[in-house]
Amino acid sequence: MKNKITDLFGIKYPIIQGGMIWCSGWKLAAAVSEAGGLGLIGAGAMRPDELRENIIRCRAETDKPFGVNIPLLYPDIDELLKIIVLEGVKIVFTSAGNPKQYTSYLQRFGIKVAHVVPSTRFAKKCIEAGVDAIVAEGFEAGGHNGTEETTTLALIPAVRELTDMPLIAAGGIGSGRAMAAMIALGADGVQVGSRFVASDESSAHDNFKRMILNTWDGGTRLVLKKLVPVRLIKNEFYKQVRALEEEGASAEELAELLGHGRAKRGMAEGDILNGELEIGQIASTIHEILPAATIIDNFIKEYREARKDIMLSEW
Amino acid sequence: MKNKITDLFGIKYPIIQGGMIWCSGWKLAAAVSEAGGLGLIGAGAMRPDELRENIIRCRAETDKPFGVNIPLLYPDIDELLKIIVLEGVKIVFTSAGNPKQYTSYLQRFGIKVAHVVPSTRFAKKCIEAGVDAIVAEGFEAGGHNGTEETTTLALIPAVRELTDMPLIAAGGIGSGRAMAAMIALGADGVQVGSRFVASDESSAHDNFKRMILNTWDGGTRLVLKKLVPVRLIKNEFYKQVRALEEEGASAEELAELLGHGRAKRGMAEGDILNGELEIGQIASTIHEILPAATIIDNFIKEYREARKDIMLSEW
Repeated sequence: MKNKITDLFGIKYPIIQGGMIWCSGWKLAAAVSEAGGLGLIGAGAMRPDELRENIIRCRAETDKPFGVNIPLLYPDIDELLKIIVLEGVKIVFTSAGNPKQYTSYLQRFGIKVAHVVPSTRFAKKCIEAGVDAIVAEGFEAGGHNGTEETTTLALIPAVRELTDMPLIAAGGIGSGRAMAAMIALGADGVQVGSRFVASDESSAHDNFKRMILNTWDGGTRLVLKKLVPVRLIKNEFYKQVRALEEEGASAEELAELLGHGRAKRGMAEGDILNGELEIGQIASTIHEILPAATIIDNFIKEYREARKDIMLSEW
Repeated sequence: MKNKITDLFGIKYPIIQGGMIWCSGWKLAAAVSEAGGLGLIGAGAMRPDELRENIIRCRAETDKPFGVNIPLLYPDIDELLKIIVLEGVKIVFTSAGNPKQYTSYLQRFGIKVAHVVPSTRFAKKCIEAGVDAIVAEGFEAGGHNGTEETTTLALIPAVRELTDMPLIAAGGIGSGRAMAAMIALGADGVQVGSRFVASDESSAHDNFKRMILNTWDGGTRLVLKKLVPVRLIKNEFYKQVRALEEEGASAEELAELLGHGRAKRGMAEGDILNGELEIGQIASTIHEILPAATIIDNFIKEYREARKDIMLSEW
């Protein structure tokens, strides 16, 4: 069986490591690609020269395909896209913004483009824009999220009804059993974020990685919905946000509390009390910081266990 | 392969029809059980004499196992449980409240008890109470929901880590592909709500059933979180609730807007503008009102398609 996602990207397993701000530099991307998945450099918050260095170092570490994830609403977007093209990157995952804006520009340079969406409404825009793959990400995912709160389990079948094109499920996928679940549901591959944040090669601060190991199933929440919804670990900063929100605070009041650099402070600098710690609900099942290659190996083992369970079912 | 859920309840397929207020009387429960699933009479909002009548009529329609779902916080709870015991019901699904309260009482009469939980915290209480099965229900489910907003995809692996006991996944399951996904994830069976609301035998008002067919993937939302969180279709009543909530309304103000009988008004009487319409996110993939037996048949067909996809995967 040829898989739409392994074929599209030229990879061994349909496992994509999500491009995550402050957590996924060249080191993680290269390790994932070397192990047979698709590593993505998360360009969010990278200056143009940093992105160039990450691409060069990633290529020095692996001759396997890797890509860059880039949020389309960034101020430096034109400069960042120019670097991606000039450095010969062949795979780009875009998120936020409108996929119509840059898809055909990138494709003209032979770049495969995937776009991340939280709803069928945005999936339709992807189809119109002619992207090569859709990433449908559910409410349980860490970090920024859609306003409609549709979960991965509800979103994948809804997007699959729209189109037969390559479809990657994201949000809530922390094991090979969840990967099998997504294949069963009609997806062609999975994008995995949180599980790779807690890897040896992730650039997340060690304090943040350790926090993930202590997160329980009610330990995150989607907040800041009047700004851009974001899923955070329930730390001191989160508690302040919630208190304001319970009182019906305005977007302006919330923006003032948020200030600047909260995500860097939490995830890169390790201020686990007052920084933003973006992680998905599936963090509650992550108990060990592991090498990226071990995470991929475990996924395949778990996938095969799940396959066996399903094959043995009688009905 | 013996399945923990089919063995426990003596049924053909591990598909449980959720017991749903105003929607699941004897007619639906009997049809589901006749077709090889487990039908549940939803005792929520039934007076004791109504529950007795539903049990008697259900047994007249089918000699296959069926059960009753009962929220433990009901005022008439003792009277309702007495009827269940006296009428010889052999399967009870409880929800809300503490499973310790009634589990061993019911088990003494040879009744199998399953309890519905939204988190590992409550799953632990189930294990302590010695229930026969756990139903773990995610954020995407319709109607009343937990406060922690954990989705089915994140919840099932977390509960599975706690225990090997029979585990039923609920929330977001509208097809046999989702059933295969839940088996892959480690569940032993599924509880299906929304899909059965839009069935011929459901006692939901036709107006409500037709509303379900027109619901899109952003068409429901979890609201009234300061009272008891409930997922509703976005109608006029919902808009009033949201407007109040955005302003930071108190529990008292929300209770006043809600008033009494909103759920009956919407789901049983068909006031689609100003009633409460409780449905899950997966409603967006429901396009036809079908006989319950056809829904079960489709689940098995779709399950087998998913199994084929997984069996053909190369990795």
